[in-house]
Amino acid sequence: MKVSVFNWAELSESERDTVLQRPAMVEDESIRQAVRDIIADVQANGDAALRELTCRFDRVDIDRFEVTSEEIDAAKSLLTKPDRRALKTAIANVRTFHAAQSSDDIDVTTTPGVRCERLTRPMETVGLYVPAGTAPLPSAAIMMAVPAQIAGCTNTVLCAPPRSDGTVDPAILYVARRTGVTRVFRVGGAQAIAAMAYGTESIPRVSKIFGPGNAFVAEAKSQVSADPNGAAQDLPAGPSEVLVIADESARAEVVAADLLSQAEHGEDSQVVLLCTSSELIEAVQTELQTQLEALPRSAIAAEAMTNSRLVRVASIDEAIAVSNRYAPEHLIINTRDARSLLPAITNAGSVFLGPWTPESLGDYCSGTNHVLPTYGFARNYSGLGVEQFQKFVTVQEASESGLRALGPIAQTLATLENLDAHERAVRVRLESL
Amino acid sequence: MKVSVFNWAELSESERDTVLQRPAMVEDESIRQAVRDIIADVQANGDAALRELTCRFDRVDIDRFEVTSEEIDAAKSLLTKPDRRALKTAIANVRTFHAAQSSDDIDVTTTPGVRCERLTRPMETVGLYVPAGTAPLPSAAIMMAVPAQIAGCTNTVLCAPPRSDGTVDPAILYVARRTGVTRVFRVGGAQAIAAMAYGTESIPRVSKIFGPGNAFVAEAKSQVSADPNGAAQDLPAGPSEVLVIADESARAEVVAADLLSQAEHGEDSQVVLLCTSSELIEAVQTELQTQLEALPRSAIAAEAMTNSRLVRVASIDEAIAVSNRYAPEHLIINTRDARSLLPAITNAGSVFLGPWTPESLGDYCSGTNHVLPTYGFARNYSGLGVEQFQKFVTVQEASESGLRALGPIAQTLATLENLDAHERAVRVRLESL
Repeated sequence: MKVSVFNWAELSESERDTVLQRPAMVEDESIRQAVRDIIADVQANGDAALRELTCRFDRVDIDRFEVTSEEIDAAKSLLTKPDRRALKTAIANVRTFHAAQSSDDIDVTTTPGVRCERLTRPMETVGLYVPAGTAPLPSAAIMMAVPAQIAGCTNTVLCAPPRSDGTVDPAILYVARRTGVTRVFRVGGAQAIAAMAYGTESIPRVSKIFGPGNAFVAEAKSQVSADPNGAAQDLPAGPSEVLVIADESARAEVVAADLLSQAEHGEDSQVVLLCTSSELIEAVQTELQTQLEALPRSAIAAEAMTNSRLVRVASIDEAIAVSNRYAPEHLIINTRDARSLLPAITNAGSVFLGPWTPESLGDYCSGTNHVLPTYGFARNYSGLGVEQFQKFVTVQEASESGLRALGPIAQTLATLENLDAHERAVRVRLESL
Repeated sequence: MKVSVFNWAELSESERDTVLQRPAMVEDESIRQAVRDIIADVQANGDAALRELTCRFDRVDIDRFEVTSEEIDAAKSLLTKPDRRALKTAIANVRTFHAAQSSDDIDVTTTPGVRCERLTRPMETVGLYVPAGTAPLPSAAIMMAVPAQIAGCTNTVLCAPPRSDGTVDPAILYVARRTGVTRVFRVGGAQAIAAMAYGTESIPRVSKIFGPGNAFVAEAKSQVSADPNGAAQDLPAGPSEVLVIADESARAEVVAADLLSQAEHGEDSQVVLLCTSSELIEAVQTELQTQLEALPRSAIAAEAMTNSRLVRVASIDEAIAVSNRYAPEHLIINTRDARSLLPAITNAGSVFLGPWTPESLGDYCSGTNHVLPTYGFARNYSGLGVEQFQKFVTVQEASESGLRALGPIAQTLATLENLDAHERAVRVRLESL
């Protein structure tokens, strides 16, 4: 495996675009059609469709989709004490960081007698999807359920695929129990998304669906969110990615490990290194080879590395400019005085500062959310937070004197826009004063 | 014109669903295809396509799309003093309310030695679309440009359709000048959305597009936002709507005027009255007829009224429950002690409290934003605010001791999820300590 190396200064603008290009996302009409069929089936046949689809895709016959409270309680005994402690610590840190995100209500008098407010309201019913494809992802459950709980959602529904014996991964159940998830269902894939968007006999309908997943899950979220009678979705899907900025103070072994920890996510993952030192780039190349061989998921990581680039930059300032242009999901700044670079970072999902902050900390337990905008969406989307489980309601209340003062302004503007009934709604009130 | 009247208590659950059903949004494949063609044309041919499309749709030949600074400055002299004063007052109130929306940065130590932050960053380049179909909408320019300015967007691009003489409505230009809009272009319709999403020789590419518009504009926003290389959009489109809750203290003339001020927006607008008094419902029916005849836009309003419902409810509590189920874009509470009902309101875009607060105040100048979630999206979307022009970047920084404390937790969870390279990225650091 040889990763491409480029020198930024020697590239033309269009070559630079190419170097920073993401791998194209597969547009597969067969996936689209399969998902359309699954959604239509679940809408028409409810639980019966879920049962049949679960037999087909998960190879297990499920009679009762809801995981019982007893089963959730029993999950604890199936985990080791260190695993439980790790999950509890992660939950605690994510809770601490997200608790600081609560929005204060706004209450402003904009004109004497005209009071304007903004109130925060939780979404009532939300759906969390926790995949368990190559491995169960209890960390994903933490990253969604904790902000839902802090937001104050009344009903938090969680779906996770059943294992071959029909049970759900105990770490996911343990997290659900400790984070206020209301109900858990053993159903996965596009059928789980369809069930939460439209409801079935056993699965309640939700107004917004969160969570990662494979191409079928992502397509299902996209389809139900395009339907006004479906459910909203969290973030646009895309392959995971990391960009590392390193200067000569960084250790090659660490830089290579950081690049590979992203590459093992999937064959479509992308990793980019921006480095001021040619020597370090060479050393990283060697380390990548060595470390890759030792990885159980080396085939996936090796494939992902073919999408990846090592780029020589002239300065750290140039690295920051390139990074902002790329807008990475994860940005590791492994340089001297990394914190001083922070004010210049405009586009990034989450930033990992200094030599002692691997991405894994944020993926699991530093406290920040690991659901982040990828594929360049960091330019115009935020990672998951409490706000995405809430919405704002604005309020205005005019007194008689407030309407006397501001009503004529509204009348003038309504007239300017030829909206006579808008003007009249003010006039019928003013005339009675 | 006779508006349907229902008694909530006498309806079955499925009849209740029907009464609260929105008019179906037209799914018109011919619009979709026309918009696809326009977008492809603008992507391929840039300004030349814009010129040709503007000739075709706006019947004017535009040579230079950018509105000059001199032209923007001259707009002031084309407006009356009262119009200028009204626009200035609206801008000032919207600014006052939106200035209160700035998010504080978060800085939390979740574990000793592990510092987590959330920083706010403006979107760099945003596009505002201001339609001018049946009438120019300078108020829409205010509602988008003021939060963009408060958010700190570096480049705010505004597009508005040219009039038959090639100029842009002076009220829109006057607002642009006073709200920090960077550049203004005379181009409208789906072609304006395509130009902002992909860029042309004269129009810069933006990362997110805001603004109302007709079916072509809405479809274009939807298409470019589905393309990862396009631009994000603000809110899903839908027809405007109001729900009025009234008790016997409300005046029929006022209630009717409020219903009609929404109905005049478009034939697909929907208005709903929830009222505890049969007498008031009858009086409102009569008033609707009288006031409708006097409206210049009576044809539009009369058509919209056929989508509309007057509903008798048993109590104000029942009215609140029905309103939350409907999730109206605008909610007027014209009752005794309206403020006491506010805590029970869970789903609404914006609320207008008491007898002296017509929707027109919020549409123009109370200070709240008039870009609001319609069509039931108030369940899971907020109206426009400063946040939609910003994104959050999270940051974490571990010290050596922070990594010693929290690294093993990340290692345990990575192992639980079978992500060995994630574990290794921690280990290579811990081993060097």
